Amino acid sequence: MDEFMEAALEEARRGLAEGGVPIGAVLVKDGRIVGRGRNRRVQEGASVLHAEIDCLHSAGRVADYRGSTLYTTLMPCPMCTGAVVQMGIARVVAGESRTLAGAREIMEARGVEVLDLQLDQCSKMMREFIEKNGLLWAEEVGEI
Amino acid sequence: MDEFMEAALEEARRGLAEGGVPIGAVLVKDGRIVGRGRNRRVQEGASVLHAEIDCLHSAGRVADYRGSTLYTTLMPCPMCTGAVVQMGIARVVAGESRTLAGAREIMEARGVEVLDLQLDQCSKMMREFIEKNGLLWAEEVGEI
Repeated sequence: MDEFMEAALEEARRGLAEGGVPIGAVLVKDGRIVGRGRNRRVQEGASVLHAEIDCLHSAGRVADYRGSTLYTTLMPCPMCTGAVVQMGIARVVAGESRTLAGAREIMEARGVEVLDLQLDQCSKMMREFIEKNGLLWAEEVGEI
Repeated sequence: MDEFMEAALEEARRGLAEGGVPIGAVLVKDGRIVGRGRNRRVQEGASVLHAEIDCLHSAGRVADYRGSTLYTTLMPCPMCTGAVVQMGIARVVAGESRTLAGAREIMEARGVEVLDLQLDQCSKMMREFIEKNGLLWAEEVGEI
């Protein structure tokens, strides 16, 4: 597997070990990781701490995200999609979109290149998590 | 002025006093403020800390934002707009949209009610800030 998606998966596993939703992300610029994060909604009690937001937060105040690529284990939701657009991120590589279709169209409409790797490893992790934590997931996607 | 927009403006003034971008927000549910925040990009060195994200972060893990209203001194950007959609916030009241048109259409396309109060008090604060801090603002809106 691509080393950057592997790093995003590593973040997801870290989140799972902490009792959180297993979604991870890394931001890559000029061939190196400049930010990393995981969904920490459960751990920090904060709805906005999706993996991508946590990742961009760790990347800090970067005036120019242009040319960077965001790797995330799951297709981003409208908030994270909007963050991609707002920060001028050029490319998003998603591990899968079976668990959540996300808001790919918002990114593509603004010229962001989107790749969906459809990795079994990513969707299997989510499937197992949701089987055991149905309510947490329903809260995550705003169904309760 | 509406007491909630006044509270959002108070947050914006607090940010200005800290040397930050003067944008503030409060989240209101059942007639009371359940979250408040201000743009803290400069203060915290974090690009994602827009006023609305900071506000939702302070509101913590709320399973049901439905029926809530977000008051913000400036029309939200794509990230914050996406957060509104993702969290199921029903209504957004913006202080103004002259400084930034924002991404009103993303919210309206998903059924969020959007009000633009066009308050001189809000746009004057931003105009004065931008006159003195052109580079900071250019970074905020991704122009540098």
